[in-house]
Amino acid sequence: MIAKKEIDRILSGYDRKDLKVAALCSHSALQLFYGARLEGLKTVGICKKKNRARYDAFPLAKPGEYVFVDRYEDAGEVAEKLAEENAIFIPHGSAVEYIGEKIGSMRLPFFGNRRVLLWEADRRKMLEWLGEAGCSMPESYAPGRIRKPSIVKFPGARGGRGYFVVSSQEEFEAKSGAMLKAGAITESDVRNAVIQEYLTGVRVYPHYFYTPFAKDGFKCAEGRLEMLGLDKRMESNVDEIYRPMSVGLKVEPSYTVVGNSPVIMRESLLDDVLEVGKRVVESSFRLFGGIYGPFCVEMIIDENFRLKVFEVSARIVAGTNIYPRGSQYSCYIFGDEGGMGTGRRIAREIKVAAQKNALQKIVY
Amino acid sequence: MIAKKEIDRILSGYDRKDLKVAALCSHSALQLFYGARLEGLKTVGICKKKNRARYDAFPLAKPGEYVFVDRYEDAGEVAEKLAEENAIFIPHGSAVEYIGEKIGSMRLPFFGNRRVLLWEADRRKMLEWLGEAGCSMPESYAPGRIRKPSIVKFPGARGGRGYFVVSSQEEFEAKSGAMLKAGAITESDVRNAVIQEYLTGVRVYPHYFYTPFAKDGFKCAEGRLEMLGLDKRMESNVDEIYRPMSVGLKVEPSYTVVGNSPVIMRESLLDDVLEVGKRVVESSFRLFGGIYGPFCVEMIIDENFRLKVFEVSARIVAGTNIYPRGSQYSCYIFGDEGGMGTGRRIAREIKVAAQKNALQKIVY
Amino acid sequence: MIAKKEIDRILSGYDRKDLKVAALCSHSALQLFYGARLEGLKTVGICKKKNRARYDAFPLAKPGEYVFVDRYEDAGEVAEKLAEENAIFIPHGSAVEYIGEKIGSMRLPFFGNRRVLLWEADRRKMLEWLGEAGCSMPESYAPGRIRKPSIVKFPGARGGRGYFVVSSQEEFEAKSGAMLKAGAITESDVRNAVIQEYLTGVRVYPHYFYTPFAKDGFKCAEGRLEMLGLDKRMESNVDEIYRPMSVGLKVEPSYTVVGNSPVIMRESLLDDVLEVGKRVVESSFRLFGGIYGPFCVEMIIDENFRLKVFEVSARIVAGTNIYPRGSQYSCYIFGDEGGMGTGRRIAREIKVAAQKNALQKIVY
Repeated sequence: MIAKKEIDRILSGYDRKDLKVAALCSHSALQLFYGARLEGLKTVGICKKKNRARYDAFPLAKPGEYVFVDRYEDAGEVAEKLAEENAIFIPHGSAVEYIGEKIGSMRLPFFGNRRVLLWEADRRKMLEWLGEAGCSMPESYAPGRIRKPSIVKFPGARGGRGYFVVSSQEEFEAKSGAMLKAGAITESDVRNAVIQEYLTGVRVYPHYFYTPFAKDGFKCAEGRLEMLGLDKRMESNVDEIYRPMSVGLKVEPSYTVVGNSPVIMRESLLDDVLEVGKRVVESSFRLFGGIYGPFCVEMIIDENFRLKVFEVSARIVAGTNIYPRGSQYSCYIFGDEGGMGTGRRIAREIKVAAQKNALQKIVY
Repeated sequence: MIAKKEIDRILSGYDRKDLKVAALCSHSALQLFYGARLEGLKTVGICKKKNRARYDAFPLAKPGEYVFVDRYEDAGEVAEKLAEENAIFIPHGSAVEYIGEKIGSMRLPFFGNRRVLLWEADRRKMLEWLGEAGCSMPESYAPGRIRKPSIVKFPGARGGRGYFVVSSQEEFEAKSGAMLKAGAITESDVRNAVIQEYLTGVRVYPHYFYTPFAKDGFKCAEGRLEMLGLDKRMESNVDEIYRPMSVGLKVEPSYTVVGNSPVIMRESLLDDVLEVGKRVVESSFRLFGGIYGPFCVEMIIDENFRLKVFEVSARIVAGTNIYPRGSQYSCYIFGDEGGMGTGRRIAREIKVAAQKNALQKIVY
Repeated sequence: MIAKKEIDRILSGYDRKDLKVAALCSHSALQLFYGARLEGLKTVGICKKKNRARYDAFPLAKPGEYVFVDRYEDAGEVAEKLAEENAIFIPHGSAVEYIGEKIGSMRLPFFGNRRVLLWEADRRKMLEWLGEAGCSMPESYAPGRIRKPSIVKFPGARGGRGYFVVSSQEEFEAKSGAMLKAGAITESDVRNAVIQEYLTGVRVYPHYFYTPFAKDGFKCAEGRLEMLGLDKRMESNVDEIYRPMSVGLKVEPSYTVVGNSPVIMRESLLDDVLEVGKRVVESSFRLFGGIYGPFCVEMIIDENFRLKVFEVSARIVAGTNIYPRGSQYSCYIFGDEGGMGTGRRIAREIKVAAQKNALQKIVY
């Protein structure tokens, strides 16, 4: 991973009055470009030619300029050019997935603490982090010791795709054995599978934002934690599987995230939701220098109002795309005018940091 | 219950140009404070110390000042102090639940007709009211005469928690017998259980507001009925129970309301929805002097577009928290600017009443 | 069907500076009137007396004037009067359904290409259109050749009402036989049933708008294609059927659309969604002179991110009623101020066309 001081060196050459927001053209890029425009920042999209039309389709959310690449994993090749243009890169979920390991060495300032991406990418480290945060979590099992119905996530499975449920050790062995035989997974995948107790309740995905620059609000680490919104993921096919079930058709559930819908939660639950976010931030300081900007903690609310945390996304999540104009929660912090979506919030944070000459604090 | 003329006496001492909106810090308080602020009214939050951070987290939705109590059931102790500050108390669902019977004697002007809370708190009176309104309702059964699959609500069960479904008299006896044995309920609970035919369809929760001060719109009693929004409750675990079901896991459904999601309904259904609201208001005048301000009628829409009403919440409901900036329906009445959430609507009503020197009409 | 040049002749007598938006008081009329008002156009509602209160309930979304009819199928009787007042009729789904075949001969300019209504009304023509567009579709079966679980739509079934699922040829014969016996359908209905492979995944309903007047954006035919929003239909009882299922109650699913809820989709799926919309527009030019204005393509997203198209609604859909103030997508094209709902978009298009003296292009 590129050294923080190397990024600070690059950043020291930036013209703070002419910053650009850079993002891979995917995931939440429309929102990021739209939000940056509302804040008066320029934007640049790292784009594959065939995806350009998707952004041109939305004139107020397309990047001010495109930089084209053949493959997103080669995004590093345009880093130098972007750094010359004072660009700050926003690492969203698709950037993490498509650029892969190379993301660590990209010679371009990233919004947030780049180290966090390592902790997010490795599910075992992620669980270690959530444990350090003291979150209430589902039980985890080693692959040979499943004792309850469990959800199985092999290392390659992303965004819910490829997850499956087993009700016992035997079922796990039968299913993983068949996948091994078919070449869909390797022995190493089996050893490194994350296997978590299957929880019942309803899933919610709060959108947090940590800023070191504001103090009024929910105190957290050296700054404040903001709750900017809440969503629920829509997974295909499981989130409509009751339809075939109701006519007696047997369908294997799959968990591919294909969209999101808005939701709010009981006001009294906010205490615990804010507390979870705070713990995740504060433990991130103990473990790896902190998390700055947006993140999401995936959780289930059970019938006794208990929150169980099963994942953390340590960057902007696609569920925030519901709220480019702000949410039911962000208006309570930023008011109504224009609305404060997470994309805009990031641009605002960059602007504030630049004004305070403190970009190096929130950039790595 | 404190006499109306006693409240009117307190109110007569109020400075109408310096009113405050008071609420218990729970349920829909963020929205109430936010809305009052938009209308230029001061706010005061009755709060337990440990809940304060939840409100401080949202600087534009926190109360202008806090009055701390140890237990919400002691809220009455701060009534005098609040009355000295010209406070009008907004009784939301948590206030009704936490303060309990003492709510009737609180020496503080309440927004709306306080008598309505008695009719809401007692499920049998509530069903009497809905019957008087001529609403189409599910069949009700006495505990010994269940003839169809039914939902059972014991007196203590609130917000969906503790509800359960039985498919026959035998199942009711087995389940309630086990609960009696376990000490979870009493014989009196069994006798006073509300048992309603189990309905199929989809649930919707329209947010109504009755005002005596406006005439243009949907005529109702001496004023107009407004439809300010619509939501759907999210209950844990039942609203994701298809997920474990799809992998063959058997899970007992529970009905704890943990959140809400936005929804709209077919335009032609509005005729009946408005009619139901009107009947509920007009019957409230016949029964107990009327209902002023926000309320919700819980209903199911079946596959033949028939509405079946199963409950009424005679005050602001938490589903309105989806729309602090207004909804798809409120913009048709109040336009887009800033948006008219139910919290703001209440503050607006107080302002209008104060201007007309008619607070005593909408306050008890 | 009335000739295009006859409509053009009527239109040539219109005062382009004093146009009115006319709609049947149903379906999406609130949104249409509200949007027209935002654009400064006058409005007229064709209304049955008993539905008037529904519109009066929303002072900013009620028509400027009403023209009353006894039955909506007689809407043609007021065409002449409306044409004298420079009215342009917006044919929404209820207009198509209630006015029926007579809609073709109404002597009143319609927004959009009236020919499209023929292609939409006849399910076989609709499937021909989607095929010509090259959309990926579920397999279709003739009534005697069902080979997979399928959904059956008889000619009279509308808005999901009356649809049913069969898992085999035998089940189809049993069910349709029983319906024939009961007189619910005719032999001709059976012969003309549309029978489509039952798909699993999640349903989404993108709201498209095709304009010939703008070029910046997603290029399509001679103009651009806009994506204005996305919804999910709420069908009674199927979309809550997991609730009775979870307590072991057996309920026959029904598919009556009673409402809609907001949703967004994974950003990378927009490529295919925009492409589907473009193909539907461009094939409409090859088949019948084009589609102008709003339309929706009903689709399912499976667990491999594949879109399968099963219907097209060639006019404003009721799901757009979620977004009278604009959506998460429309703000990326039109910005935030006031919001650009589909109703307003239609009014805007009429205004732009009038300014360009090109109404005949988007009116038939």
